[in-house]
Amino acid sequence: MKDRVYNFAAGPSMLADEVLNELHDEFFNYNGSGMAVMEMSHRSKEYMEIFNEAKGRLRRIMEIPEEYEIFFMHGGATGQFAAVPMNLMKKKKADYIITGNFSKKAAQEASKYGEVNIIYDGKENNYSHIPSADELSFSDDIDYVHLCANNTIYGTEWKTFPDTGDIPLVVDMSSDILSRKIDVKEFGLIYAGAQKNIGIAGIAVVIIRKDLISDHDPKTPQVMAYDLTLKNDSMLNTPPTYPIYVLGKVLKWIEEIGGIKEIEERNIAKAKLLYDYLDHQSFYIPHAEKGSRSLMNVTFTTPSEDMDAAFAKKATEQGLCNLKGHRLVGGIRASIYNAMPIEGVEKLISFMEEFAKENA
Amino acid sequence: MKDRVYNFAAGPSMLADEVLNELHDEFFNYNGSGMAVMEMSHRSKEYMEIFNEAKGRLRRIMEIPEEYEIFFMHGGATGQFAAVPMNLMKKKKADYIITGNFSKKAAQEASKYGEVNIIYDGKENNYSHIPSADELSFSDDIDYVHLCANNTIYGTEWKTFPDTGDIPLVVDMSSDILSRKIDVKEFGLIYAGAQKNIGIAGIAVVIIRKDLISDHDPKTPQVMAYDLTLKNDSMLNTPPTYPIYVLGKVLKWIEEIGGIKEIEERNIAKAKLLYDYLDHQSFYIPHAEKGSRSLMNVTFTTPSEDMDAAFAKKATEQGLCNLKGHRLVGGIRASIYNAMPIEGVEKLISFMEEFAKENA
Repeated sequence: MKDRVYNFAAGPSMLADEVLNELHDEFFNYNGSGMAVMEMSHRSKEYMEIFNEAKGRLRRIMEIPEEYEIFFMHGGATGQFAAVPMNLMKKKKADYIITGNFSKKAAQEASKYGEVNIIYDGKENNYSHIPSADELSFSDDIDYVHLCANNTIYGTEWKTFPDTGDIPLVVDMSSDILSRKIDVKEFGLIYAGAQKNIGIAGIAVVIIRKDLISDHDPKTPQVMAYDLTLKNDSMLNTPPTYPIYVLGKVLKWIEEIGGIKEIEERNIAKAKLLYDYLDHQSFYIPHAEKGSRSLMNVTFTTPSEDMDAAFAKKATEQGLCNLKGHRLVGGIRASIYNAMPIEGVEKLISFMEEFAKENA
Repeated sequence: MKDRVYNFAAGPSMLADEVLNELHDEFFNYNGSGMAVMEMSHRSKEYMEIFNEAKGRLRRIMEIPEEYEIFFMHGGATGQFAAVPMNLMKKKKADYIITGNFSKKAAQEASKYGEVNIIYDGKENNYSHIPSADELSFSDDIDYVHLCANNTIYGTEWKTFPDTGDIPLVVDMSSDILSRKIDVKEFGLIYAGAQKNIGIAGIAVVIIRKDLISDHDPKTPQVMAYDLTLKNDSMLNTPPTYPIYVLGKVLKWIEEIGGIKEIEERNIAKAKLLYDYLDHQSFYIPHAEKGSRSLMNVTFTTPSEDMDAAFAKKATEQGLCNLKGHRLVGGIRASIYNAMPIEGVEKLISFMEEFAKENA
C-alpha cells in the first residue's frame, strides 16, 4: 500500500485502505470457494451470500424501513435519469429543482417522458445556492419532485430536504449517499451511482418505497423497469457482480468503524477544517454560499485560471491528485468523500498555505 | 493461486490465471499512479490509456474494419435487447431467429418497439438444432435480422451465419465472442455481455457499422442511445471502469498467447475431446444435434434427473464446479469458454468415466 496518493477525484474516487486490503486478500480464492468473486456465477450460493449481505448491510446502516425495497441496477445514476420518469410518471408530470449540472441533466432526460416543470433553477447565482423552503412551491397534480442532494461540480449540498407532503420526493444522492444521517422516510425514492461514496463505477443503488413500484411506460427497457427488478430481486439479467461485492466491502467498513454516526462526524471534521481555512485567508475564493456548502466537494478558485492550473499541477507532484475543477466550471475542487482520511485534508491545507504564500 | 477449482459456470465464468495474476499485482498502485484502477477518474490520463488500449486491442484481435465503431456500454446484453430496436428500428420491423432462451428474450423485448417476425423457432426440436440457409427466408422491408450466435442453455452454435444481403445482421455473441475467427464485415452489429468469454459482468461490448448509427426512438434512455454513445466515446456517463480494465487484460492475454487463431485451436481441441468422449459411450446423452454443437457449452444428461444432481454434486467435491444445467432445462452443462484450460476438460472426462462406471 505504499506510495499511494491522496485522490481528490469527484468520482470514481478513493476507497478506504481497509476495503482495498480485503479485496486484495480475497482476490484469487474467495472464502475457500476456489474462485475469484469476479468469476462467480451470480446464481451461486457463495455469490448470493455476498449479494444478500450487501443488501442487509445497506438496510441496517441507513435504517431503511421494511416498506422500502433496495435495488442494484445497471446504468449508473444517468440510467436512473430515465428510469425514474419511465417508472414513476403516471400522470406524466413532475417538478424538477435544478441546483447544478446533474439535476439539469436529470430534468432534460425526464422531459422525454412527460411534462417537466423546473420550479427552481440556480443559474443566476451560478449554482452557488441551495433554495430554502420559501423559494419553492410545488405544482399541482404531479407524480414526484426531483432534486440532487449534493452538487459535485459546484460544491453545494441540501442540508435539509423540502417537505413535499404526499408527493414523493425523488433524490439523486450519488455524491453524498452514506455520508451523513438521513431519514429514508422523507423520500419516495433515493438513487445513487456507487462510484463516489460507496464503491466503484458500474452500479446504481435504488431505494424505493414499495407503493411506488407498479407499471412502467411500455417502452421502458426491461433492465430499467422497477417492477421487473423487484420480481427478479435485481437479477433480471446478470448484475454487475464485482461492483456489488465492492459495495458490500465498503458497507462492511462503514459498519466496522461505527456506522453513519462515525462517518458523519469524520466528514464534518474534514469539511470544517477546509472551510475554516478558506474563511480565514484571502488568496482562495470559495464558490458555494456558506449556508449551501457541501461536505463532500469543496470548490474554490485561485486569483487566476493560470494559477488554478499551476495549483493542480503542483499538488499532483506532491501526491494530492485530481484537484482540477470540473471542465464546465474550472477552478479547484477537492472531493473529500467518506474514504478520504483527515490526513489528506491536512496535507491539502498545508499545500494550500504554501502555494498561497508563494503566489500572493 | 492454489486450491483453485475448474469453474464450468455458464457466466460469469473463469478468467485465465495470467489475467488474475496481473489484476492482483497491479491492484493497489496501477503503473505508478498511486491508486487502484477502480479508484481512477474515468477522465484521467491513466484511465484513458487503459480504455483506449482495450479498444485498440479488440480492434486488432477481431480485425474490426475502420467503418465499424466499438462501444462499451452499461446494462449487459439484456440492455442491448432494448437498445438494438430502439436505435435500429426505423421501419419498425425486424426478423428474429429463435434458437434458444436468449434469442427468445431478445425478440420479446424488441416487440415493444416494433413489429417482430419470428422467422424460425427451434421449439419443436427443443432447441437442439441451428437452422440452415434453406430453413430461413427473410421478410420484406425490415430493419435487421437478429440471431444469437451461441446458445448457452442448449449448447448449440451457428457455424456459419446466414447471408442477409443488404439487410443488417445483428448478432448476440455474448457466449462466443472471441472464441473463434469471424468476419466482422458479415454483420451490421455485434453485441456481447463480457462475463463469459472476455471479462466480468457489468459491461456490454457493441461493434456497429457506422452507417447504422443515427437517430433513435425518442424514448430511448440516453445511456442506450448509440448516437450519443458515439458522440461521447462511451463516456456519456461514468463507464463501468473496472470491468473495462478487466476486458483489456483478457484481450492482452489473448494477444500474448497468439490471438484468435490460437484461442480457436484451443477451443476446438477442448470441445473435440469432450464430444469425442460423448460420442463413444452410451451412459450420457448429448443434447445438441451433431451439426449444431457449441464449442463453448457442452450439454448432456445422465440417465435420470436424480443422477444429474448426483453428478453435479460429486463433481463439485472434486473441484469441477457449476456443471448443473440451466434451471430451465436441467441436465448437465459444461461451459468451456476461452479461459478453461484443456486440463479442466481432461479432468472432467476422467470424472465422467468414473461416474458412468459407478452408476451404469
